Amino acid sequence: MENSDQDPLLVSENTRRRKKSYGTSSQQEVKNFNSGNENGFKDDIKPILDEIHSLKRSSRANETVPIGSLDVLSVKYESLDYDICENRLMLDEERNKGYSYYIKKLFMKWIIFFLIGMLTALIGVCIDISIDIISTYKYSVIKNNIDHCVTEDCLHVPFFIWVGMNVGLVFVGAVLVAYIEPVAGGSGIPQVKCYLNGIKMPRLVRIKTLIVKVIGVISTVVGGLAGGKEGPMIHAGAVVAAGISQGKSTSLKSDCKILGYFREDHEKRDFVSGGAAAGVAAAFGAPVGGVLFSLEEGSSFWNQSLTWRIFFASSISTFTLNIILSAYHGRPGELAYYGLLNFGHFESLDYQLFELALFALMGVIGGILGSVYTFINYRLTVFRLRYINSQWLKVVEACLVAAVSATVGLLMIYLLNDCRPLGQDPTKFPIQMYCNDGEYNSAAAIWLQVPEASVRSLFHDPPASHKLSTLVIFMVVYLGLSIWTYGLSMSAGIFIPCLLTGAAWGRVIGILISLMLPNASWVDPGKYALVGAAAQLGGVVRMTISLTIILIEATGNINFGLPLMITLMTAKWVGEYFCEGFYDIHIQLAGVPLLAWDPPPLSSSFTANKVMSYPVVTLPPTVNVRTIVNILTSVTFNGFPIVEETKSKYHRSSGACFKSAGRLRGLILRSQLLVLLKRRIHVQQGVVPEITIKDFREEYPSYCEIKDIYIPEEEMDCKIDLTPYMNPSPYTVQHVASLPRMFRLFRALGLRHLIVVNETNEVIGMVTRKDLARYRIAKHSGQVNMEELNFSDRL
Amino acid sequence: MENSDQDPLLVSENTRRRKKSYGTSSQQEVKNFNSGNENGFKDDIKPILDEIHSLKRSSRANETVPIGSLDVLSVKYESLDYDICENRLMLDEERNKGYSYYIKKLFMKWIIFFLIGMLTALIGVCIDISIDIISTYKYSVIKNNIDHCVTEDCLHVPFFIWVGMNVGLVFVGAVLVAYIEPVAGGSGIPQVKCYLNGIKMPRLVRIKTLIVKVIGVISTVVGGLAGGKEGPMIHAGAVVAAGISQGKSTSLKSDCKILGYFREDHEKRDFVSGGAAAGVAAAFGAPVGGVLFSLEEGSSFWNQSLTWRIFFASSISTFTLNIILSAYHGRPGELAYYGLLNFGHFESLDYQLFELALFALMGVIGGILGSVYTFINYRLTVFRLRYINSQWLKVVEACLVAAVSATVGLLMIYLLNDCRPLGQDPTKFPIQMYCNDGEYNSAAAIWLQVPEASVRSLFHDPPASHKLSTLVIFMVVYLGLSIWTYGLSMSAGIFIPCLLTGAAWGRVIGILISLMLPNASWVDPGKYALVGAAAQLGGVVRMTISLTIILIEATGNINFGLPLMITLMTAKWVGEYFCEGFYDIHIQLAGVPLLAWDPPPLSSSFTANKVMSYPVVTLPPTVNVRTIVNILTSVTFNGFPIVEETKSKYHRSSGACFKSAGRLRGLILRSQLLVLLKRRIHVQQGVVPEITIKDFREEYPSYCEIKDIYIPEEEMDCKIDLTPYMNPSPYTVQHVASLPRMFRLFRALGLRHLIVVNETNEVIGMVTRKDLARYRIAKHSGQVNMEELNFSDRL
Repeated sequence: MENSDQDPLLVSENTRRRKKSYGTSSQQEVKNFNSGNENGFKDDIKPILDEIHSLKRSSRANETVPIGSLDVLSVKYESLDYDICENRLMLDEERNKGYSYYIKKLFMKWIIFFLIGMLTALIGVCIDISIDIISTYKYSVIKNNIDHCVTEDCLHVPFFIWVGMNVGLVFVGAVLVAYIEPVAGGSGIPQVKCYLNGIKMPRLVRIKTLIVKVIGVISTVVGGLAGGKEGPMIHAGAVVAAGISQGKSTSLKSDCKILGYFREDHEKRDFVSGGAAAGVAAAFGAPVGGVLFSLEEGSSFWNQSLTWRIFFASSISTFTLNIILSAYHGRPGELAYYGLLNFGHFESLDYQLFELALFALMGVIGGILGSVYTFINYRLTVFRLRYINSQWLKVVEACLVAAVSATVGLLMIYLLNDCRPLGQDPTKFPIQMYCNDGEYNSAAAIWLQVPEASVRSLFHDPPASHKLSTLVIFMVVYLGLSIWTYGLSMSAGIFIPCLLTGAAWGRVIGILISLMLPNASWVDPGKYALVGAAAQLGGVVRMTISLTIILIEATGNINFGLPLMITLMTAKWVGEYFCEGFYDIHIQLAGVPLLAWDPPPLSSSFTANKVMSYPVVTLPPTVNVRTIVNILTSVTFNGFPIVEETKSKYHRSSGACFKSAGRLRGLILRSQLLVLLKRRIHVQQGVVPEITIKDFREEYPSYCEIKDIYIPEEEMDCKIDLTPYMNPSPYTVQHVASLPRMFRLFRALGLRHLIVVNETNEVIGMVTRKDLARYRIAKHSGQVNMEELNFSDRL
Repeated sequence: MENSDQDPLLVSENTRRRKKSYGTSSQQEVKNFNSGNENGFKDDIKPILDEIHSLKRSSRANETVPIGSLDVLSVKYESLDYDICENRLMLDEERNKGYSYYIKKLFMKWIIFFLIGMLTALIGVCIDISIDIISTYKYSVIKNNIDHCVTEDCLHVPFFIWVGMNVGLVFVGAVLVAYIEPVAGGSGIPQVKCYLNGIKMPRLVRIKTLIVKVIGVISTVVGGLAGGKEGPMIHAGAVVAAGISQGKSTSLKSDCKILGYFREDHEKRDFVSGGAAAGVAAAFGAPVGGVLFSLEEGSSFWNQSLTWRIFFASSISTFTLNIILSAYHGRPGELAYYGLLNFGHFESLDYQLFELALFALMGVIGGILGSVYTFINYRLTVFRLRYINSQWLKVVEACLVAAVSATVGLLMIYLLNDCRPLGQDPTKFPIQMYCNDGEYNSAAAIWLQVPEASVRSLFHDPPASHKLSTLVIFMVVYLGLSIWTYGLSMSAGIFIPCLLTGAAWGRVIGILISLMLPNASWVDPGKYALVGAAAQLGGVVRMTISLTIILIEATGNINFGLPLMITLMTAKWVGEYFCEGFYDIHIQLAGVPLLAWDPPPLSSSFTANKVMSYPVVTLPPTVNVRTIVNILTSVTFNGFPIVEETKSKYHRSSGACFKSAGRLRGLILRSQLLVLLKRRIHVQQGVVPEITIKDFREEYPSYCEIKDIYIPEEEMDCKIDLTPYMNPSPYTVQHVASLPRMFRLFRALGLRHLIVVNETNEVIGMVTRKDLARYRIAKHSGQVNMEELNFSDRL
């Protein structure tokens, strides 16, 4: 228990699980339970607790989790609960407030989605304009110094300026992320994906996280790291949505006391889907792609009106961003800036039928390179987990990467003499270096601009803008830098680095083809750069329909959909042959119990009594305060079935024997019990009065812990009637139900607890997300089998 | 029973329901059940059957359903069953065939989706080319005759030719639909929507239906009716998908014996979603819109890999259509034909910020006009239900409309003298009529082309191509014609008529604005025609995100997404103030028990024991053949819980008293029992041998009826062990579960039967789709209340 202070609940869920793996045999268990059952409910729990504690001691020793293992689930992560607790309080509210309340909620939803779209776009604008101003300043200083020093032979001066600026900027971001809010590191997409999948991600949607993320991403991009601002935008949208919809902030410790009716996991999730979509829409100018991103990564249950609202938020987001950016860039009212990243206007994107095969081949390359990217970054992450543990080391590593990025950039400019004539000028800061008058250094053009602009250059520069060798060297160098960058203690996305790497090798292929077939009019290096960018990105992130549509919208050309789709599809298939997707690997590394879309194949023979956790701690319908306190202090389960005692004491099922805990009456959550204890105001005549639904909403989502609640001894023997608060008809399955059946129920309805009952409706076990997530299909020496993952509280 | 020969099952489900409405009191029931329970299971059923039969007689008299009522559910429609029956046969198959079988199924899915996309596009091409050839011939004949007769004063000749051609062509389509396959009438979208919602639509996806539909839609369009070919394309895609994926055809009475493993409702549904999407993709060149159409209308459970396959089918469909049509129109390899309907290339679609308010206003007009359209068509449909009952009357009405359409067209050409200079020539068959030399009649230009071309003309014709009065008259006339046309015994969609009407009034608004503000450069009548078309269509069909994206893709301009969205949103909101959507009204008229996305608001206080149907007919785990035959002959329920007898005979819940039918062991379907009886081969020693999973698949989906199975008397006393075939863990709810809870379970998992149990897991009732669909929220004199719909077997 000692090392799990952040979230002690999970440790004992872990224990509950371990029960099955390391525990005494089932027969012995039953014997334990048979003693001491006669004198009332309170004593009935004692043997269970004793058993759990003894197991905890004995099993602790068994646990050695190799760092970097992909086959372990963390016990730290809890599920969100999308099930609606239809208890008496909620029924009363529905009856009293009636239809107008329903309409009011509906109306408020539209307003909130509007605000989500607008605010997300405003954050995007802030990031974009900050980056624009700072980077313009930075690059102009460097350019002037280089121009000056090429003649004066003082190139060490711009070198130190460049390195110094990079390191200084990155230092700010790294310190913020390492010391203030580590969850703001990385792109945020894997975390948002987990949240939408139904997992509680601690501190993910706090305002503090948002602030760190925004400053962090600015420092990443202007600090010259190989990272993008698109992934962080999605995270930012999610935070905005969670913040606005709840009317309260844990970071700011303020509660506006409005919008109380949206303080439920499932309402909040709906808004966060909208926020993520608005983030995508702002990042890529892709409202439809945003909706599909939310659906692909999140929703299990498609709902027409929700999707329509999400689309509304996305459209508002793109529109707001466009209006403001157009005005900022001096073209007010023209609506020419569709997103933070847009691919620019392609004159024509025609393709011949046979080119589809070529695109598929590029998809293969993307799949392979993407797997290489993912694999090396995975090894690097494992190395970091092992050796770069302290916060200052993380800051140092980030600064080191910043310095190396600048060095490599200057070296490429210095060593490669790729001169092109000025004039059609695709860059803002052309540097002459050792080129003749009227020419500029093409390598400098790539390095001395933000990566988004480099991507656009590779898409649209005229065919002869780069030497082949420049592009090849750039691609290798940038691939290496971007692998090194992701996982630093910085906020940085991987979309832009992948697109840029891919665009570079795609353009290389385009140039090679045009060298081989000088007369082919269909060869356009820009088109191949686009396909390469898609292939590389697809090979890394392995998203499907949403990525296709994001790319279509960013390209602005619907007719190029099929080529993009074929490229992404091949990249995904080839990549999956080698390793899992980038996000998935990082999610597995963190041991997050993500549930896939479908139950694992070949799992129908696993039944509920094999999968479930037991023993279950239960409560009677009316209970002493003391009993509740005892239970909450001793175990850390999050849901307690409410049962009535029955005569039968155990239950036999497929050879094993399970304690039956009594006949199911309902389910009460730990959080509900905590609120009941905390708010037991006006105790009179030994009975705790009813608590209203408002009390529950005010406490959501950060409930206090049992040790923080002081209960005077004279109230300890008060009785609480739990029936008004419990969920009277929780979802249950029979002990013979199959794993796929439970999985579908769990996934489609977003459950947190699924109670397993025997033939006479007596509780014998409990299935939670972790019980389902631990089953996985795996290939070992040609044989395909189910494997069960282990649990760890070290992750 | 007499009039329900197509689907007798539903009549007694109706009776089961009616039980609650008209039956004797619950107390009496229990008394009935208490007698005759001692001597075995078979006799136990007799009182239930007796009761059901007596109720049927007594309640029949109570039933008078007004024709055209929107508040009645038909008992004719059954649910599909998306739940997977994880019985022993299926487990054995999974164990024996292993992982390679799983991979093979996956691979086959991709192939089938590819074929669905391609074949759907080929059907689209057939329709398009046929229409092109026939209509070119028709219009050139008419044009030549008019040109000739204007001078010779014999205008009655082209009039008779026009009317004759129209009537002749429409006659073919009307006869086919009226006499051969009525389900091929209309657009097919409401029916496909119902199918995807989980309702068995008889004969909807048969090949015969497809053939009638294809010929029907050609005859509609070339016959000059105000109907489109886009809706029927969606239906065609659905049929193609169902046909290919099952490897058998009921129409052709052939079974290829392949793809047996896809013969399940939920697999078939997945393919049909893909087919519908491919249909949309072919019709509008909108692959993304197709995917979203399928999702919006169909899927309840979003699945990433399924959606990706659907998108694949859609893309293949658009691509195939494009390749072939480009070649047909003499531009092979250019990929310039994105769908049967495309809006043509808009040079620029910019808009000013303030125009958004204007677009919203047009949305309001669209909502009002759409409601008018829907309301008049609804009254007309009721009139037809009442008076146009016989097949020949339907054919006559269709021919009448064809004749009127031609007459109106010629009258407009004759009476309106709207002359425009030739030259920029937006039409294929310019007619001079009474215009000066070098001019053509603008009204003739609208009438003498297929409606798709007219839509494009209104979008792209130069500002001064039409007189205001011509457009206004055309719009009114065409609105009338299209209202009259939908519901004829013809295959015809409403997309094109709505778009054309809307484009006409939209253009009128554009012209009016440019008259008022002659200097405003932003006024482009074509742009307003587009917004008007969207508004009109949105006001009628009330689709949301999918329609927006279909229009964006058909326009080919992503940046015009927000205006289209705002227009559609206002149109939907305003329209919903007046009446429900067009498709919904037609679905309600047919009494189809469609389930909405969310449970009705304010329904949490309705619990399972209020909602469920009872008594339930159950079976013991091992049963005589005779008992099965008796039950299947006497009742027409589709699912029978398998129970073990218990001591308790009834159960009290919220004041009422319910017969408890024994402890739940599993669920067996009527179809499974039928297969068991039909295939009871090699009966030896009085025991029926096991039947394999193949037997079940070969019978899917058209099971025989019990009266067609001959069982020799000596086999009647054989015992069948039902446990290997039953679903051992069907979904259940407690009698206290709320309506929203059951609704979500039912909707998310696509259930057909939901068993209601008491505290000790004894069956007390059954909830089916109709039990849930009958609850609806309604406004009566300002008060909002729940109302319960009645049932009818007359619909």
